[in-house]
Amino acid sequence: MKNIDDIAKLAGVSKSTVSRYLNNGSVSSQTKQKLDEIIQTYDYQPNQFAQSLRAHRTNMIGTIIPRMNSHAVDETVKGIKTICDKLNYRLLLNYTNLNTELEIDALETFYRSKMDGVIFMATDITPEHIEVINKVRVPVIIVGQSHKDLHCITYDDYQAGYLVGDLLGQKGYQHIKFFGVTESDSAVGIHRKNGLIAGLQKHGIQPSISITSFHYSEALIDVEKELQTHKHYDAIVGATDAIALAVHKYQSKHGISKHVVGFGGDPVTEIVSPPIQTVPYAFEHAGEVAMDMLDKMIQHQPVEKEIVIGIDQTFKK
Amino acid sequence: MKNIDDIAKLAGVSKSTVSRYLNNGSVSSQTKQKLDEIIQTYDYQPNQFAQSLRAHRTNMIGTIIPRMNSHAVDETVKGIKTICDKLNYRLLLNYTNLNTELEIDALETFYRSKMDGVIFMATDITPEHIEVINKVRVPVIIVGQSHKDLHCITYDDYQAGYLVGDLLGQKGYQHIKFFGVTESDSAVGIHRKNGLIAGLQKHGIQPSISITSFHYSEALIDVEKELQTHKHYDAIVGATDAIALAVHKYQSKHGISKHVVGFGGDPVTEIVSPPIQTVPYAFEHAGEVAMDMLDKMIQHQPVEKEIVIGIDQTFKK
Repeated sequence: MKNIDDIAKLAGVSKSTVSRYLNNGSVSSQTKQKLDEIIQTYDYQPNQFAQSLRAHRTNMIGTIIPRMNSHAVDETVKGIKTICDKLNYRLLLNYTNLNTELEIDALETFYRSKMDGVIFMATDITPEHIEVINKVRVPVIIVGQSHKDLHCITYDDYQAGYLVGDLLGQKGYQHIKFFGVTESDSAVGIHRKNGLIAGLQKHGIQPSISITSFHYSEALIDVEKELQTHKHYDAIVGATDAIALAVHKYQSKHGISKHVVGFGGDPVTEIVSPPIQTVPYAFEHAGEVAMDMLDKMIQHQPVEKEIVIGIDQTFKK
Repeated sequence: MKNIDDIAKLAGVSKSTVSRYLNNGSVSSQTKQKLDEIIQTYDYQPNQFAQSLRAHRTNMIGTIIPRMNSHAVDETVKGIKTICDKLNYRLLLNYTNLNTELEIDALETFYRSKMDGVIFMATDITPEHIEVINKVRVPVIIVGQSHKDLHCITYDDYQAGYLVGDLLGQKGYQHIKFFGVTESDSAVGIHRKNGLIAGLQKHGIQPSISITSFHYSEALIDVEKELQTHKHYDAIVGATDAIALAVHKYQSKHGISKHVVGFGGDPVTEIVSPPIQTVPYAFEHAGEVAMDMLDKMIQHQPVEKEIVIGIDQTFKK
């Protein structure tokens, strides 16, 4: 078992630099990388310093949420909160209304408020995000999107799309309409779409694809425009439950009841009649996994770079 | 114009006590009351100390939210956020899942994190809440409930209930079922219900009343039990939109389409078919009003004790 002196010698830095590193203080990225490696190699557990480390910690966690009235956000925060309660962290949320500038500001606010770590429910990760995440020097975990330079919890969106495509093919549908979203959201805009295309391709089907908005009311306008002029589809897929609900609204207004599929497991898909088929996502579980991972990072324990949450294949009804 | 010396003399306390008071520090409740009165009487504007006060401030606002996946919470936070952005405050949220213990803890966490003020979206205010609110010594505003000892933003729930009762009477409905909630939530459980009863009474109608839960899935069970055995109602009122949606679900499952009314203006009431009639609440406006009021309190300007947000009477369709 190595102690802090050994670590300092191995890294060729002073003991106080190691201590600063352990307390999430400022060290160069080169030193940080070196210390990361040494600590991982020797499986260094800084538990003997837990008491002193603790003094530097606030036991507060910040979470950045892009919107409020959302099943996905609600469930994810529930999961984060469960683990926070278990591990005696306080959870504070920062609501950014899908605005990049506010997200950057939220990261800085959490850093200044001395949060021990941050969970960021992201839709789009820009170079500006990366810059500030590197700057704030507290552990940050992204939920919902993948990024090569960041710790992430993601969903198997390709698989979710594939399952739906394969299922629709099996059921004998021929003319499929897909309402997707912008590719700047790579999870939903790219992976989910590509999975669907591949699942349908297995059955020799090529879907018609339009791009619409994440917002129900904006999607409703696009859906109306498209479905009023193209009536030959026998199944319609929304890239999200909100989009699927817009399709449902259009159909019930016009007395149509073609098969509609969404993604996310929003309970509203059950309230409407007929219910919409939706692929449930394990948002709450993802929140728990994210907070467990963040706690390990705060304690300088080794963690995975990315954890992919699987899709429950039994959803088919 | 009085200065801080005059205020101290008038109150019979030291200048440092006045300064402590102005900086939200600890002063006795007796002294606080005396200083409140003097400052209000002489319309004392501590602007000349703004700079020094500012140094003691973090420009951070805490908001306690009882749940996430809620139209009311979403809209209220939007309103709060708009004013925070305008006045250069940072907004942090604490999610308490309708748990009193977590609410108490949230108040203390915000106090320890040196928030300048707190907005509390409450459903039930217990003596424990009052105790901690008095203890934390930062301005706290309650949104959604009224309490004689606290600053509040409330809705005219009685009027909302009355409008619905009167409207149903005018439309000629005779047998009205009302699904209410516990009276421990006085806004919804008492005022909204009493308004409905009074509005119906004007037309000589007495509703049948059952108590159910705020949660859709729990309400669905109660609604099924009641409506399966009592089929003679010609209109059904839910104390909230979630309850009205449970009634809608029951009806669409059984091919029934009696008139359903809810409260809150949740957009889901528009997605379902047929749409549910709902009384819109100005949640976003209430959030703006609350944050404006909180800012005044932080600056020690006089504010109203309670502001009642009116109901838009044009909702009738």
